[in-house]
Amino acid sequence: MSRPEFQLIDWIRGQVRDRAPVTLGIGDDAACLKPSADRETLVAIDMLMEGVHFTFPPATPQLAGRKALAVNLSDIAAMAGRPTAAFISVALPKRRGMDFAKDVHAGLIELANEHNVIVAGGDTNSWDGPLVISVTVVGEPLGLRPVCRKGARPGDWIFVTGALGGSLPSGRHLTFPPRLGEVAQLTSLVDLHAMMDISDGLAADLHHLLDTSHVGAMIEADQIPLTETATRMIDGQSPLIHGLSDGEDFELLFAVSPDDGRLLMSDWRNETPVHKIGEITEGHGARIRYPDGRIEPLPPLGWTHQLGENR
Amino acid sequence: MSRPEFQLIDWIRGQVRDRAPVTLGIGDDAACLKPSADRETLVAIDMLMEGVHFTFPPATPQLAGRKALAVNLSDIAAMAGRPTAAFISVALPKRRGMDFAKDVHAGLIELANEHNVIVAGGDTNSWDGPLVISVTVVGEPLGLRPVCRKGARPGDWIFVTGALGGSLPSGRHLTFPPRLGEVAQLTSLVDLHAMMDISDGLAADLHHLLDTSHVGAMIEADQIPLTETATRMIDGQSPLIHGLSDGEDFELLFAVSPDDGRLLMSDWRNETPVHKIGEITEGHGARIRYPDGRIEPLPPLGWTHQLGENR
Repeated sequence: MSRPEFQLIDWIRGQVRDRAPVTLGIGDDAACLKPSADRETLVAIDMLMEGVHFTFPPATPQLAGRKALAVNLSDIAAMAGRPTAAFISVALPKRRGMDFAKDVHAGLIELANEHNVIVAGGDTNSWDGPLVISVTVVGEPLGLRPVCRKGARPGDWIFVTGALGGSLPSGRHLTFPPRLGEVAQLTSLVDLHAMMDISDGLAADLHHLLDTSHVGAMIEADQIPLTETATRMIDGQSPLIHGLSDGEDFELLFAVSPDDGRLLMSDWRNETPVHKIGEITEGHGARIRYPDGRIEPLPPLGWTHQLGENR
Repeated sequence: MSRPEFQLIDWIRGQVRDRAPVTLGIGDDAACLKPSADRETLVAIDMLMEGVHFTFPPATPQLAGRKALAVNLSDIAAMAGRPTAAFISVALPKRRGMDFAKDVHAGLIELANEHNVIVAGGDTNSWDGPLVISVTVVGEPLGLRPVCRKGARPGDWIFVTGALGGSLPSGRHLTFPPRLGEVAQLTSLVDLHAMMDISDGLAADLHHLLDTSHVGAMIEADQIPLTETATRMIDGQSPLIHGLSDGEDFELLFAVSPDDGRLLMSDWRNETPVHKIGEITEGHGARIRYPDGRIEPLPPLGWTHQLGENR
């Protein structure tokens, strides 16, 4: 940790407690962890910037810190993993002062404690610019192997957790619960063939999963679970388009065998629902079937699409 | 990786090659590593901000990327470690365009390749703000255990690598070589009791090492190796003050037994010199002895001191 704001770091150290697998936490040149001998180590990293991934208001400093960890916990969940330790680097706006800096870390640490994640290191900087938070989370697979984007097979059933759309206007992108409990339950029930979290929008992320797995998909338009926000938005786009293209849902998208799919539809007990939204096919690309039987190509709407338009 | 700049990410993927211990690199929700079964995992994290840790010019985008990795490699060296994988999150200034973004990564990847470090993941963002780079480096101890700041014992000899002072005006803070080869050689020759890298200035960092080890130190003023820049600066401060208080040297500061110290002074063969600068004592705090025999307290000059003055 170079150029530390020592008072803040002392405060952070007072909030956290080293425990296994962390053998040396905050305060040296690097942290030490003793990973499980029979497991791979998972590493996720995400950077959030004020004005891009959150603004004050509606975000509070606590919610900004919370989100910076939550998006990484969602990444670990998407690998069928269990997070163990988090590392926080921040560029703190000088003009906002020490209480703001503590609040950012307090929001992050509160979520870390909820999920038994140890804040084991970081780098604390201040400047005249806006808040930037980069969090790295280390974890390990719940099973012997992580679940990747690659691995979906033709015939697999495609599921999502929760409901999709409207995360930014509803503020859910600041408060969403990473699906760690859900993925632990999924791992105990079924063999997950492929999985990812939905951050760029269902259609865009589905294409990532399909392309990596070298398969295609047929999605059922009327099976996509939509949030209340998505169904009520009056911006001229349909609820379905919001469910397909809105970013930052942070729900899980996964593929399982038909047998496991049937098992989930009968045996899933969790306050977070899982919904079958379609099936993996041979070939490549995605198609969408409407209730009237019409079938159309489903392009990678959402962030990717916007990127394409902007260039 | 959320909100990726896909073209840039594809380019980065083309520059790197997954190999052990990385089992899954760039392109999924998290990376996977298979760490050595008998070793702890080291994790270092540092964030650099344009206008704070570098400016354009004199920095180039390549040198900014290089420095963001180098400071982390220095942290791993300071634990007597070997770096294995790096994770890069960036906030790229939109107005500087794609070539700039590639150059930042090219500078980083070139240094990674020099040290056999695999770029295994990241998060690529763009915004209207200045460049921010946060790098996380994973590694493992060269020996069975890492070397920490804690562990210096009364009677130990205190050494530094290289020469100190003037790193910012000379531009060395952008081009310094992380002392990874040196620490591998040190580890093979001697039993390092305590070590850290000098980022905040010798006097400030010495205090960190002393406080963590619960010991004191006597430093010999005329034994501190000074860079040519430190001896030639005409800002009214003495070369010694530059050597003691200038930040960003990124040399190693370490303590060994007197026997090992004598061994180093006779057997050290490396183009980077090591210099004995003093000895660990009972008690706490540091003192400095001048050639005329005068002894004075040595406060934690440098960044810490400036922080204290600014508050």
